[in-house]
Amino acid sequence: MTKGNINAFGDVTKVCSLQELLEAYLQIRSQTEVLASPITADDAQLQSMTDVSPTKWHLGHTSWFFETFLLSDYARYAPIHEEYRFIFNSYYNTIGKQLPRSSRGLLSRPLLGQVVDYRHAVDAGVMRFVEEFSHSNLSKCARIIAIGLNHEQQHQELMLTDILHVYWTNPLRPAYRDKSLQLCAAPPSIVWHSFEEGIHWVGAQGRTFAFDNEYPRHRHFLHRFDLASRLVTAGEFMQFIADDGYQRPELWLSDGWSTIQEGQWQAPLYWEQQNGKWWSMTLHGMQPIDPNTAVCHVSFYEADAYARWAGARLPTEAEWEIAAEGVPVTGNLQESEHLVPVSPQETSAAYPLQMYGDTWEWTQSAYSAYPGYRAGDGALGEYNGKFMCNQLVLRGASLATPVGHIRPSYRNFFPPHARWQFSGIRLARDS
Amino acid sequence: MTKGNINAFGDVTKVCSLQELLEAYLQIRSQTEVLASPITADDAQLQSMTDVSPTKWHLGHTSWFFETFLLSDYARYAPIHEEYRFIFNSYYNTIGKQLPRSSRGLLSRPLLGQVVDYRHAVDAGVMRFVEEFSHSNLSKCARIIAIGLNHEQQHQELMLTDILHVYWTNPLRPAYRDKSLQLCAAPPSIVWHSFEEGIHWVGAQGRTFAFDNEYPRHRHFLHRFDLASRLVTAGEFMQFIADDGYQRPELWLSDGWSTIQEGQWQAPLYWEQQNGKWWSMTLHGMQPIDPNTAVCHVSFYEADAYARWAGARLPTEAEWEIAAEGVPVTGNLQESEHLVPVSPQETSAAYPLQMYGDTWEWTQSAYSAYPGYRAGDGALGEYNGKFMCNQLVLRGASLATPVGHIRPSYRNFFPPHARWQFSGIRLARDS
Amino acid sequence: MTKGNINAFGDVTKVCSLQELLEAYLQIRSQTEVLASPITADDAQLQSMTDVSPTKWHLGHTSWFFETFLLSDYARYAPIHEEYRFIFNSYYNTIGKQLPRSSRGLLSRPLLGQVVDYRHAVDAGVMRFVEEFSHSNLSKCARIIAIGLNHEQQHQELMLTDILHVYWTNPLRPAYRDKSLQLCAAPPSIVWHSFEEGIHWVGAQGRTFAFDNEYPRHRHFLHRFDLASRLVTAGEFMQFIADDGYQRPELWLSDGWSTIQEGQWQAPLYWEQQNGKWWSMTLHGMQPIDPNTAVCHVSFYEADAYARWAGARLPTEAEWEIAAEGVPVTGNLQESEHLVPVSPQETSAAYPLQMYGDTWEWTQSAYSAYPGYRAGDGALGEYNGKFMCNQLVLRGASLATPVGHIRPSYRNFFPPHARWQFSGIRLARDS
Amino acid sequence: MTKGNINAFGDVTKVCSLQELLEAYLQIRSQTEVLASPITADDAQLQSMTDVSPTKWHLGHTSWFFETFLLSDYARYAPIHEEYRFIFNSYYNTIGKQLPRSSRGLLSRPLLGQVVDYRHAVDAGVMRFVEEFSHSNLSKCARIIAIGLNHEQQHQELMLTDILHVYWTNPLRPAYRDKSLQLCAAPPSIVWHSFEEGIHWVGAQGRTFAFDNEYPRHRHFLHRFDLASRLVTAGEFMQFIADDGYQRPELWLSDGWSTIQEGQWQAPLYWEQQNGKWWSMTLHGMQPIDPNTAVCHVSFYEADAYARWAGARLPTEAEWEIAAEGVPVTGNLQESEHLVPVSPQETSAAYPLQMYGDTWEWTQSAYSAYPGYRAGDGALGEYNGKFMCNQLVLRGASLATPVGHIRPSYRNFFPPHARWQFSGIRLARDS
Repeated sequence: MTKGNINAFGDVTKVCSLQELLEAYLQIRSQTEVLASPITADDAQLQSMTDVSPTKWHLGHTSWFFETFLLSDYARYAPIHEEYRFIFNSYYNTIGKQLPRSSRGLLSRPLLGQVVDYRHAVDAGVMRFVEEFSHSNLSKCARIIAIGLNHEQQHQELMLTDILHVYWTNPLRPAYRDKSLQLCAAPPSIVWHSFEEGIHWVGAQGRTFAFDNEYPRHRHFLHRFDLASRLVTAGEFMQFIADDGYQRPELWLSDGWSTIQEGQWQAPLYWEQQNGKWWSMTLHGMQPIDPNTAVCHVSFYEADAYARWAGARLPTEAEWEIAAEGVPVTGNLQESEHLVPVSPQETSAAYPLQMYGDTWEWTQSAYSAYPGYRAGDGALGEYNGKFMCNQLVLRGASLATPVGHIRPSYRNFFPPHARWQFSGIRLARDS
Repeated sequence: MTKGNINAFGDVTKVCSLQELLEAYLQIRSQTEVLASPITADDAQLQSMTDVSPTKWHLGHTSWFFETFLLSDYARYAPIHEEYRFIFNSYYNTIGKQLPRSSRGLLSRPLLGQVVDYRHAVDAGVMRFVEEFSHSNLSKCARIIAIGLNHEQQHQELMLTDILHVYWTNPLRPAYRDKSLQLCAAPPSIVWHSFEEGIHWVGAQGRTFAFDNEYPRHRHFLHRFDLASRLVTAGEFMQFIADDGYQRPELWLSDGWSTIQEGQWQAPLYWEQQNGKWWSMTLHGMQPIDPNTAVCHVSFYEADAYARWAGARLPTEAEWEIAAEGVPVTGNLQESEHLVPVSPQETSAAYPLQMYGDTWEWTQSAYSAYPGYRAGDGALGEYNGKFMCNQLVLRGASLATPVGHIRPSYRNFFPPHARWQFSGIRLARDS
Repeated sequence: MTKGNINAFGDVTKVCSLQELLEAYLQIRSQTEVLASPITADDAQLQSMTDVSPTKWHLGHTSWFFETFLLSDYARYAPIHEEYRFIFNSYYNTIGKQLPRSSRGLLSRPLLGQVVDYRHAVDAGVMRFVEEFSHSNLSKCARIIAIGLNHEQQHQELMLTDILHVYWTNPLRPAYRDKSLQLCAAPPSIVWHSFEEGIHWVGAQGRTFAFDNEYPRHRHFLHRFDLASRLVTAGEFMQFIADDGYQRPELWLSDGWSTIQEGQWQAPLYWEQQNGKWWSMTLHGMQPIDPNTAVCHVSFYEADAYARWAGARLPTEAEWEIAAEGVPVTGNLQESEHLVPVSPQETSAAYPLQMYGDTWEWTQSAYSAYPGYRAGDGALGEYNGKFMCNQLVLRGASLATPVGHIRPSYRNFFPPHARWQFSGIRLARDS
Repeated sequence: MTKGNINAFGDVTKVCSLQELLEAYLQIRSQTEVLASPITADDAQLQSMTDVSPTKWHLGHTSWFFETFLLSDYARYAPIHEEYRFIFNSYYNTIGKQLPRSSRGLLSRPLLGQVVDYRHAVDAGVMRFVEEFSHSNLSKCARIIAIGLNHEQQHQELMLTDILHVYWTNPLRPAYRDKSLQLCAAPPSIVWHSFEEGIHWVGAQGRTFAFDNEYPRHRHFLHRFDLASRLVTAGEFMQFIADDGYQRPELWLSDGWSTIQEGQWQAPLYWEQQNGKWWSMTLHGMQPIDPNTAVCHVSFYEADAYARWAGARLPTEAEWEIAAEGVPVTGNLQESEHLVPVSPQETSAAYPLQMYGDTWEWTQSAYSAYPGYRAGDGALGEYNGKFMCNQLVLRGASLATPVGHIRPSYRNFFPPHARWQFSGIRLARDS
């Protein structure tokens, strides 16, 4: 078993040159600003619920990350604003106190323009720093840059995830990006891919960057199981609704039933019925729901209830990872600029479709430490490990995830009631 | 007794010509935009607590008022945006449903620029409308314009009141307007002006505009009383604090004691102690507190406790109004552009000083209907009457009140715990 | 003007002999236990909402009152249990810390029997004390006993008020006392008693016991008004409901409208509709509502809305007091042991009927200090004065009030949303 | 792999005769009343927090269980009170609506005596029923009785768990049972028992009664691990506190850190420091904490933080179960009538000590379905399965668990913040 601590986030210098790292830096940092560009100063300010962070905060926090973990520790560098250490710290207690999460929407200052200036000042600092790299620190610094870039990619997705919620709360329902959508053709019926029982290796292999929570690679016994060939569609989920799925307690976990009662949930988030037809708020504005595309914005509770209704279950994360072996990392991802799910059309694939893109896939696995897991040292040790409680693992990737961010061992995680992220359902069953 | 209903808000045409009304319209509407001009799109969006409305909302709501009560009812006029009827309605149930007050901060749209455009479109509509005035409606329409302008002036003050709270919640503590302040000289000691017992007339006399809640003018029996010659100063309030004023339950009303316990209040709002010295957040940014100026941002509970500590009491609103008879309507008002209280320097005035300007003055009078009061007909009847419960009357005017808005019979009102407005203390006592 | 402070609660020795006081003591203390006797140890424990106190706590607190204000201060007396000083202190900060009000329902100990023992120990202490009375203190001690007895009578009413709420929350809906009720005959129609404008004296005259809040007697100017000859009936209130009274915002104060929205109020407290017929939970169990009896368990908001709907208004407390001059203090009071309202049958009375008994009557007057009011010294100064905010005055008496407790100047008070007490409606109007 | 559905709760008739079952019924039902006997009608009523149920409710609910699942379904039997179906239903949606959990403390009725009568009526019904057993249903009915008895044993423990919390909230701090306690000798130092990696069988073997959540028995791959030879002591936990364990965020899960901040936790539940010495509320009243006994009343968050501080970790539930193989099911259990933990004294045991008794042991395993798990049919299917989210598994048994209730595969579960139950800590580590 690989020891997690020594190399918690993998040795980036083994998998990418310094030059490649800098190119990635420039590309990813600039892509964040491209994604933020349709968002006005008015919009960029808003925290429509505690889970949501304002665009402005995402822009600042991702820069703070490089300032704090790279520049402040390793370079001759004076912080740009002392208060930003407080304002843009998310949850790193080791670094110091933080603005309470629920107060991020109060940040009318710094102004949006000032946050962009801050980004550029940090970028300049990173460039200067890299030119002066001491060779003794090379591997360590490269690793921090790699973490910072993966972190930035996570916030790219969160930025899109959050702005959709912001726009949804507005009675005018603005679109993040206008686009005229066309109906998809029906996807092929679900077929079941079978996998044999036995001991399998699970976790990151160290060939690419991976987070500490993907380590150590370890053995896991799996019983026989089947995995569905594609995601559950919106049309299939409409049948669940029509069959009183939200009114039948026997389909729900106890906490799920409480959640839908208290929230008066009758459908996925953002869904609305108008004259008997389902519409949904999307990043392309209010749209009729295409029944052939994957259902999106469901909580774990809804995914679990749907699976029970369908006579199936959700996969475990180990099952998902085994099934993902060898599946190409492609799909409707951020680069497609198509901000609603699509419908898969292949009919003869040897592997499950839509494993990446469209929506993240809820698993039934509680997010917990792999056997032998150790969090990294210092403040970055707070990145993942301290969240290993009260959350469920999601696998795959969504329409808002950049392609370079993804790998089979990747573990996303959210609490079971969360559904403002791009999350959907894939079924599994005992063979 | 004048019947309130017939002429609830006074007959404006008796006190001002149409030409004067239009000049007032242009001046007041434009002054609102002048006041809003230092506030950026980022700032204009923010609702830092439920009581606070975003600048953008104030700008929109005051325009909605003219659109709804003047243009929609009387003119050939199509509303500019159907949704604005919902978004910018404050509390007029007769008009229709409203965006919940606590959601005003979610209004990233309409954008600030779009709200300004809306203002100008309404202004154009009002100009067209006035040119086409039918003579039969002249008095009624003039009355509505007068109400709308007085309403706009109230929101001018609220806009300043609210933005101070917004800036205070920001860790960077921005200033609404930079200004270097100089210490004031000590004010004269308090002397007591005495008033005889007897039946007095109270309420609006109908010579200028007045709200329905100032009518009908009526008789009231007053016992002998004394009124203090000036407001309580910050320095005097510091003595209350130093004498454990916030720690002694016997000084407080029961609800007041609960409020300061739960809120952990130890000083007026916006006050902070740094190295043993008191500072306060103001519209001119963080400033050392000048002990010679009036204490500001106290709740009724604090005003009442201070008065008890000082061996005095708060005046009733009738006492205040009797004492204000003949006092010139001048002081540190909005036009002074001095956004913190000052210190009165006259020593030989025959009347109490600071009756207008610096801070509103808490009275001990619950806000209730005058004998014979009737609210206006229709939606404007909701303006004042329905709030006559759970509030206390404040009299006078503050540094944020425009001079043209004020008269001796004016009744401001807030709940007893409110203190984000510019509110202070004047003492009274039984003779 | 009588100075309130010197003799805040009246000089009891002027109006009653020591012997009479002791007889009153024995009678009133014993009556409390009679009232508590149908309440089991299970019931006596319960706090069904924060406003409600358990029977056990009422029994203890009224004894604590004598122990604290009489025995501890004046007699050679050791407290029975040190912890009881904390447990049974209601809100006297001057005495010390208190069990939070919301935790009274946690008091499984002392057991009911132990609380009764405590009562008897205090009674024995009071008897011993009175025998040893020093003549110098006679007047002061007699005054405290008188206050304690009036306090006890208030808690007798609260005990009945609270146990009704307790029983109502129980799915089995037990009766405090079984009784078969017969329908009342229709009351006479409302006629209006008119009163002339002028200066009137208001407040306690000092001929009987009165609380400090009834002093000082003072002058008040009243405009002409009419007062209704009886209370509003349940049948009349049903018409208000049937006329969509609870659905029409224009009838309601703003805070009232919010209250009924949030609480989803559609009728007075304890009312339920079964098969189109109104029933109410009462101290005699679930009963069909007799439309000829006074409506009960309405909040100030509902009383105010009803009055507006009826084209009338609520009286002020001064109006009520003037109208009560010379009216006999009789009615359906505690001694009747008829624990629901009745219907008045006199048709030729020269004065308004039902001024005492059946229900307390909401006035439109905020509860505040009379001109020249001063609270008593020491802890008993906390009895009334510190509650003079956010409450409305009720006048009269209810079916749960003992006859000896009542006088025309008596001021009861509750917050405007409260309705678990026996409160009803009498109309007034401008002449 | 055994299919869980066919025989979800095991076939009782294989492991126990009908006669034995009836003896068990009488013994267990009567033991519940013995345990309840020190609890007065006042105490039996109280719900000191939502998690706690009143004693009276436990007594009623356990009887409702037999009435609902045995008598109503299989016997000629009329329910004793129709309302009890609602009042005493805990969470079985399939059966019907339930009194909200948070309202159980409002049940002053039925009176304690009436609930005991209800118990006896149900017992009589069960006896009659068993005599008339149809042979075709024998196995099924016996299974339901067995479930009901195991359910009753769980509520015996909950009754003790809950009454401790009730007594703790009372300022008088009564004891459930008086007992003078003596200090224990120091336990042996922790030694580590090692277990080899490999595939292990986990889950119930079907030789005794087991709940559905212990099925199906299945294979699980375990890496090498060590398990501590005894529980963590109170003295060891005091060192964690003294080392600022509650002040160092790096020791805590993120949700744990929030929990201790919000709750201002500084020590286990029920602990109090007086003059530098630790005391704890226990079922034997307030007692000085014996440092040699197991720490009790810690949440998962505290157990996890302690383990991190100690350089170890919590075991998984599979590790615990493997280690428990062959360990005798003995210890300080309910039958000892010693209601605080003790200290183990053996020094040469070949297996870990205290695996049963004293405290339940938090594992790091989220409570979830075993591979192939299926909940039972009908309402009893709600017993366990629907809680498989947001909870952690505890293993072993506590001082309040009856010995007959326990087996190695037993899975107890609570949310991570819960600590009013008898829960403690055993350490594990990677070999």
